[in-house]
Amino acid sequence: MPSPAALAADRLSELDAFLLELNTVAADVILPLFRADHGLEDKGGVRGFDPVTAADKGAEAAIRKLIAARYPDHGVIGEEYGEDRPDAEFVWVLDPVDGTRAFISGLPLWCVLIGLRHQGRPVLGSIAQPFLDEIYLGHAAGSRLIARGQTKPLQVRPCPKLTDAVIATTDPEGCFDGAELGAWTQVRAAARLARLGCDAYAYAMVAMGKMDMVIEAGLKAWDIESAIPLIEGAGGLVTNWRGQPVGPDGGQIVIAGDQACLDEALVALKRSAK
Amino acid sequence: MPSPAALAADRLSELDAFLLELNTVAADVILPLFRADHGLEDKGGVRGFDPVTAADKGAEAAIRKLIAARYPDHGVIGEEYGEDRPDAEFVWVLDPVDGTRAFISGLPLWCVLIGLRHQGRPVLGSIAQPFLDEIYLGHAAGSRLIARGQTKPLQVRPCPKLTDAVIATTDPEGCFDGAELGAWTQVRAAARLARLGCDAYAYAMVAMGKMDMVIEAGLKAWDIESAIPLIEGAGGLVTNWRGQPVGPDGGQIVIAGDQACLDEALVALKRSAK
Repeated sequence: MPSPAALAADRLSELDAFLLELNTVAADVILPLFRADHGLEDKGGVRGFDPVTAADKGAEAAIRKLIAARYPDHGVIGEEYGEDRPDAEFVWVLDPVDGTRAFISGLPLWCVLIGLRHQGRPVLGSIAQPFLDEIYLGHAAGSRLIARGQTKPLQVRPCPKLTDAVIATTDPEGCFDGAELGAWTQVRAAARLARLGCDAYAYAMVAMGKMDMVIEAGLKAWDIESAIPLIEGAGGLVTNWRGQPVGPDGGQIVIAGDQACLDEALVALKRSAK
Repeated sequence: MPSPAALAADRLSELDAFLLELNTVAADVILPLFRADHGLEDKGGVRGFDPVTAADKGAEAAIRKLIAARYPDHGVIGEEYGEDRPDAEFVWVLDPVDGTRAFISGLPLWCVLIGLRHQGRPVLGSIAQPFLDEIYLGHAAGSRLIARGQTKPLQVRPCPKLTDAVIATTDPEGCFDGAELGAWTQVRAAARLARLGCDAYAYAMVAMGKMDMVIEAGLKAWDIESAIPLIEGAGGLVTNWRGQPVGPDGGQIVIAGDQACLDEALVALKRSAK
């Protein structure tokens, strides 16, 4: 498989600009529905509560429409409307509202996640929080935050010891099985501080150098792919619980700013790796 | 003890305006330090990590200075600088940065909590999130949100069944003892959806009618007093885990928008009440 370097700089720059356009159309759909009548439905059935709203569906439809108009040969994989040309050279992988539970609870930490695969590898991605007017965007050449009219580079911070680390996961009891919960509990006991309930916004805090590690399990591709170029472009790492690259199906993931800190956590995580 | 009705409307209106001034001086201190060099210290020692920053200390000092200048006979109880005239007719009870852990992690859900006791009873309170430009403020005559130049009334929503409720707590493993964790786990199992990691911002979401219940334990007076007038002014309820009024020492609390939903949760919570 060719390396992402095969993607020329001018092509990447064009797609970076298009990613900002996609974020604009998503925000235009979602923001009027936040803390408003958003048509909540439960798609979980017997599996338990799994909320979806007009914001999720409307934003994904708007993003897909713009992709189809501009790049009709590109593929799309999205949470709400499935796969379309998943083997294309370029494939957009997206979750229109990551953190739908936060969204329906009025909490401004839900995110729009949009990533781009080139020849099967994540090369460009953004995590946006439109209510805060923040877009965290990155690729191999670097990551940046575009917020409230200003652009700033993103850089992870050094944190070689797990005992100094600020770590996060969304919901230990809700998202981990027994073995995973044991691994999380071990890592948490060693870390300085743990935060819960952040969904993908925690990834952005690692890219910004405000957190040191995020540990999740049971993710789908659209939950994590946008974060890979963003975190790597900010100098950080994204692996599975064995310390290997994250595959196209998501699963157990760990995001870290510092390799030494990641290695410490992996001692516990590997024992519960699937 | 006289009822809060003894506080004349014009006096309450004056103190309501002053509360907005206090929030302005607090925000002026805190905002430049958010996601910046905030002089983190650990005041926990052997008890574990207990962070405090220049934002906590500077904001409380600024609030105390303004109170002393305008109302030198008022008392103050604050997280960082202790008690000053705690038996005065009017006592301000404040936490300059509730959610210091969120603050140092870059997460915009920390809050400025400022409440006012009149003759020992909480009569006025605000929960502010300056990064979002939001002040949730209330008293017996009503509660409102002042956000980004607009003011809207706050009203809890009906939710008579716990099975339909969106509930929240900050950190089950970190904040509850064994019996408390059992009670939380029971309530969570019955509820529709649980959110974690919100600190006092979750109280504001109940006042806004976006969440239905918040359950916490081990609170100090400054963690909860500002919420009592706010929630009650929005039509909601604040009690301890026995369903009784919250005392001046905080402890185990439950905030709810609907009495029937609260009663269902209290069946479990009472068994772990202290």
